[in-house]
Amino acid sequence: MAIKDVRQGKRNEQGISAVLDILKQAFGERFQTGQSFREQHAHTTTYLPAQLPDGVVFAETSEDVKLVVKTCAAHKVPVIAFGTGSSLEGQVNAAHGGISLDFSRMNKVLSVSPEDLDVTVEPGLTREELNVHLRDTGLFFPIDPGANASIGGMTATRASGTNAVRYGTMKDNVLALTVVTADGEEIHVGTRARKSSAGYDLTRLYVGSEGTLGIITSVTLRLQGIPEKIGGGVCAFETVEAACSAVIMTIQMGIPVARIELLDAMQIRACNAYSDLSYPEKPTLFVEFHGTDETVALQSAQFAEIAAEFGGDEFVFTANAEERAKLWKARHNAYWAGRALDPSLSGFSTDVCVPISRLAECVAATQADIAEAGLLAPIVGHAGDGNFHVLVMFDDKDPASVAKVEAFTHRLGKRALAMDGTCTGEHGVGQGKVSLLAEETGPALRLMQTIKKSLDPDNIFNPGKIWHPAD
Amino acid sequence: MAIKDVRQGKRNEQGISAVLDILKQAFGERFQTGQSFREQHAHTTTYLPAQLPDGVVFAETSEDVKLVVKTCAAHKVPVIAFGTGSSLEGQVNAAHGGISLDFSRMNKVLSVSPEDLDVTVEPGLTREELNVHLRDTGLFFPIDPGANASIGGMTATRASGTNAVRYGTMKDNVLALTVVTADGEEIHVGTRARKSSAGYDLTRLYVGSEGTLGIITSVTLRLQGIPEKIGGGVCAFETVEAACSAVIMTIQMGIPVARIELLDAMQIRACNAYSDLSYPEKPTLFVEFHGTDETVALQSAQFAEIAAEFGGDEFVFTANAEERAKLWKARHNAYWAGRALDPSLSGFSTDVCVPISRLAECVAATQADIAEAGLLAPIVGHAGDGNFHVLVMFDDKDPASVAKVEAFTHRLGKRALAMDGTCTGEHGVGQGKVSLLAEETGPALRLMQTIKKSLDPDNIFNPGKIWHPAD
Repeated sequence: MAIKDVRQGKRNEQGISAVLDILKQAFGERFQTGQSFREQHAHTTTYLPAQLPDGVVFAETSEDVKLVVKTCAAHKVPVIAFGTGSSLEGQVNAAHGGISLDFSRMNKVLSVSPEDLDVTVEPGLTREELNVHLRDTGLFFPIDPGANASIGGMTATRASGTNAVRYGTMKDNVLALTVVTADGEEIHVGTRARKSSAGYDLTRLYVGSEGTLGIITSVTLRLQGIPEKIGGGVCAFETVEAACSAVIMTIQMGIPVARIELLDAMQIRACNAYSDLSYPEKPTLFVEFHGTDETVALQSAQFAEIAAEFGGDEFVFTANAEERAKLWKARHNAYWAGRALDPSLSGFSTDVCVPISRLAECVAATQADIAEAGLLAPIVGHAGDGNFHVLVMFDDKDPASVAKVEAFTHRLGKRALAMDGTCTGEHGVGQGKVSLLAEETGPALRLMQTIKKSLDPDNIFNPGKIWHPAD
Repeated sequence: MAIKDVRQGKRNEQGISAVLDILKQAFGERFQTGQSFREQHAHTTTYLPAQLPDGVVFAETSEDVKLVVKTCAAHKVPVIAFGTGSSLEGQVNAAHGGISLDFSRMNKVLSVSPEDLDVTVEPGLTREELNVHLRDTGLFFPIDPGANASIGGMTATRASGTNAVRYGTMKDNVLALTVVTADGEEIHVGTRARKSSAGYDLTRLYVGSEGTLGIITSVTLRLQGIPEKIGGGVCAFETVEAACSAVIMTIQMGIPVARIELLDAMQIRACNAYSDLSYPEKPTLFVEFHGTDETVALQSAQFAEIAAEFGGDEFVFTANAEERAKLWKARHNAYWAGRALDPSLSGFSTDVCVPISRLAECVAATQADIAEAGLLAPIVGHAGDGNFHVLVMFDDKDPASVAKVEAFTHRLGKRALAMDGTCTGEHGVGQGKVSLLAEETGPALRLMQTIKKSLDPDNIFNPGKIWHPAD
């Protein structure tokens, strides 16, 4: 199936063969080349075809990582870091073949500093595991991209999610990293200090580099105190425009909303059916506030006023933990609810981000596009950031259907760019957004490529991502 | 005078001479080579000796910048961006000679988007000019490094200041840039979208790169709504430890303090004398809250409780604009107050940043060091970030006194590094922190140098900064 942005890079067969032998010797049972392992490590929950690695190493220490990188570097063979495989743009595909470096066994919490609100973890730890570990400290790690992704993967794709509007993205929450570079040595970038002007911001360079500049071996993260009180609710609007206007006003007034999610009418219909709810089938905001009894009550009241101003239905507030959990479960199940609209189809979640003043316009134009293309595609957005997702349903057995998804995501990306936005707010470029990124960045793409070449001259780190293998 | 980290780089006399001729032709009166202009553009308010550029171009447009860069690139002559000259680590010194590119005439506000809370400006605009311009929009730009610095300079040094604890640093507030690269072309990096996962974070790479990777020609910044209510106050503690413990508790509880500044007893004595005040001469926190009547009252009450818990004197709160202005004027005049402790001496402000759990220990050890060295050196800190400044008084005519400053700042930097901190929280590396940066980053420094070399192969952008000319 010809997906424009997924290309097969040139394979270094001789090098790969040599590396397979060496790694088998070095790692024994922790090195796997069976088909099922290889398939599992190229799994992409997308319309993009899988490209299997030649083998999988289950790393347990930084020393393992260094050995794999040194071996691959010596033979100019690709090495692709693998967290949980929940990336959405083909990030773990082995476009040139090579070795998948699985981090599931490097999932320790290395240190917690409650006084400084920070933690250092191995990259294979998932965000849910981290929060379970932190439970007794009164602290939590807020970034929540939906999937129970690994911290390393979230760092590599600059992930965010529902509460980025309050707590920022991975860019804002990674303090320091250790990284194995192309020479197989481990370096430290950043410190535990909250801010620094000490030279180039290498930490931010690695955050979002999608495994193309080095392999992350530990991550130091900022933490937050668990709010004394959490409350929120749901409010339906007549139009997407009205809902977005309420969002803009909320942000402009500086109300520190923790989550403000937009679900379009189709998504509400899907959620109602899937989660046995009965929300009015209208554009709806799911809102949450974090603070104390007083501030949550205050901010909810402020939001209710704003919602009313834009013709919203009554804002139904709850601080009851059970009701709140039900509400957010419905939101978190949006993907599965969408998929359930037609269980015979596959679903692919794509994302763009625009300045919030353009959000309503972009969502409305996208809804019109969906209708015209005859697609089944509910929309859910992190409205406070101007970021939204379209879950495009398609038949993965039908090339015409896949081509339709690809064409739609490209139109969506171009629409966002035309509105001063970006082709991806949080999913990354991988393979699926390669041509959109080129359009977005223009000549700046050449700088990215220059940096890549300077730090990874033999192109061993996750080649074929962010730009085409041949570029 | 031999300052270890200030070295004279090799001058390309032939190239410089050719460039001087070309720029004179091209810019006429807007190109100056007189001694006073050259001195003014190497002025550093520090103990570091000045290194004068060979000429100064007053740029008015991006086209001017491109022409200067192309000319300098063709002849391999350094070009050094100049904002207001308020940097503190020799950032505008011409270590290899070359051209100072003055941005004072590129100070226009290019566009304001109130709905998106962003603004695009030319780099020569100062932060005070920006806030005057924004006055009628209900918005403001919060970053306040003390000096009325230019936005371009603040971007280049990753500046922050008193309210970074609430609003972040330049790293968090720059959305997009245009930059003239080494080939003399202008590129766009970043977008007006609030977040993005579209490729390498070039925006964050330029923020804090101190003019060594390209010349910034416009900056798109996030703005904030002017708070409905601002209130704050002053609270004295028996010890630095007690004051820092109150800060840590405030941060841990998630109280969104807008400013929380620590002044040590010597600094309070200086402020009392200079601003005709009568604060108790004890370690003191200056605190400010931004919000509504209700939230400011609430947060102030919470802080007062915390302060009491750590034996603080009564927290004297005021929301009266005049009293507040007086309080913060005293804080902002800390530098001049310090200088007034002995008007015969010069003063040099240095900074480090440590995890907040180590702040008290670092400040106390530094006070002991100051006493032992027989220095006059008040301390003032952005305590919420673990960042503090020492204003070291010295006799700039006396080599022994200058050597003492240099030795002290190096001990201070090493102390911060030993506590998991950074050698500079907000002043940058320039020339003064070159050896400390090398110690802080270890092998990661080589990566920075590799990136520099790849983006500026002829080393024309502000050479001799961040690392030594010869390195």
